[in-house]
Amino acid sequence: MSTTLPQRTVFIVSDSTGITAETFSNSVLTQFISDFDFKQAREPYITTVEKAKEVFYAIKEAHIADNAKPIVFSTLVDHELQNIIKEAPCIFLDIFGSCVQQLSNALEVSPKRVVGRSHLDAESAAYRKRMDAINFTLAHDDGQFVHGLDQADVILVGVSRCGKTPTSLYLAMQYGLKVANFPLIPEDFERGTLPSTLHPFKDKLFGLSINPERLSQIREERRPNSKYASIVQCVMEVEAAEDMMKQEGIEWLSTTTRSVEEISTTVLHILGLDRNMKKTLSV
Amino acid sequence: MSTTLPQRTVFIVSDSTGITAETFSNSVLTQFISDFDFKQAREPYITTVEKAKEVFYAIKEAHIADNAKPIVFSTLVDHELQNIIKEAPCIFLDIFGSCVQQLSNALEVSPKRVVGRSHLDAESAAYRKRMDAINFTLAHDDGQFVHGLDQADVILVGVSRCGKTPTSLYLAMQYGLKVANFPLIPEDFERGTLPSTLHPFKDKLFGLSINPERLSQIREERRPNSKYASIVQCVMEVEAAEDMMKQEGIEWLSTTTRSVEEISTTVLHILGLDRNMKKTLSV
Repeated sequence: MSTTLPQRTVFIVSDSTGITAETFSNSVLTQFISDFDFKQAREPYITTVEKAKEVFYAIKEAHIADNAKPIVFSTLVDHELQNIIKEAPCIFLDIFGSCVQQLSNALEVSPKRVVGRSHLDAESAAYRKRMDAINFTLAHDDGQFVHGLDQADVILVGVSRCGKTPTSLYLAMQYGLKVANFPLIPEDFERGTLPSTLHPFKDKLFGLSINPERLSQIREERRPNSKYASIVQCVMEVEAAEDMMKQEGIEWLSTTTRSVEEISTTVLHILGLDRNMKKTLSV
Repeated sequence: MSTTLPQRTVFIVSDSTGITAETFSNSVLTQFISDFDFKQAREPYITTVEKAKEVFYAIKEAHIADNAKPIVFSTLVDHELQNIIKEAPCIFLDIFGSCVQQLSNALEVSPKRVVGRSHLDAESAAYRKRMDAINFTLAHDDGQFVHGLDQADVILVGVSRCGKTPTSLYLAMQYGLKVANFPLIPEDFERGTLPSTLHPFKDKLFGLSINPERLSQIREERRPNSKYASIVQCVMEVEAAEDMMKQEGIEWLSTTTRSVEEISTTVLHILGLDRNMKKTLSV
């Protein structure tokens, strides 16, 4: 990013963690990123007049420093707190406001004006499911533990360092899915079949692959100048793994240019796990 | 949730993963959760007319099944695709539209109308930082690896099963922070000091604690009827850990009723790691 772009400070102001507001602001600011150099301050748990006033002063300071109005992404539900922030020199965006109003009109019910944190409730069944999923996924990383695979929602397979672990953890953390992952290793390719442990679970298998050059780079960082990281070895493993997945009828995708979010979304979609996910919100 | 509430289908329609739209819709729907039984369908990667038409028909079907208009949360930027969806019988919410328009007016620049996926770019430096952080965090889970602690951004301490691992992984995954975690164990309490490995890194330490009854429940699931899970042992460890953290001047919080998102937000805030996080967006 060029240093000649004008600087703008972005405030994420929330009565809860501000995580939703931050994700939202990232997406919106993408549309303006070629014109500004954005700097961000997250202000979570703004639940009192005192805290709102601190943010008010921080916005005023940033206004002077940048010589431009800061952008405020707010999820504040409380009108009094919202009004304190709005008095600061800023571009104030109430990120839920417009959608909540439209929905309220269309559904003909009033919004409850509660702080939107239900999906984070640490004592809910959904939350405990997520924690159990993370524990399961950690215990079943890299084929280290084969008991309990019948409880897995998904089993990822692929060559070493192709992205199985981050994808598994993301699926567990974000969706409460129990994800095991198994490396496909040279012994499997010599034998020409999947590890026998996996045979009973073919409907849960999903394959990850990767471009051999990229794989070689990643392995090189871990074990420089090793046979393991050599391009010859990487080409051989990737070809053998892709052949095996085709032969066994396992759906797979390449992780080379995809983020864990993108890989996870595709895995969910292809395995049909994102259909009719019941909302886990509760009052 | 009562089964007598009217059912409404919610469609998350996105040209990318739909993750932002889903988080956003969860927050908005929280305001209406006492009046409806929401059922969700996520429709990611809607990038062609064909795919948009499939969603159009799925919305029509849900309209008939529910006998009520589905709610559509859309992040579609392409007008042609947006218009196909809008022709279905639905409550259509363009989640970024209103904020992008307000910002465009206030900043006096046009939005770029690009698909908002830059923050997921698998080949960006920020993304590689996240992947490195996940690898570091896994390698430094549960005090298993003490080398490289000087590279850690945060070191979490606390008794076994108080929530260190999920919090560490969340901070790594979401914020690209390298997080180590160390259990505080009975030997540390007998000795009366922190493990000596941690002494050089006191400014990176953050403590987690937990209600002893809750801890006993969690440990009971893992090792039923053990001394480890007994309430006597849990009370002793939690008291000793909290005393040690006070004595060493380590900031700490209780995880008992907090989600990983809430814990992580507080850790970032107290350690000052969320101030002026430079936006990692790039064109």
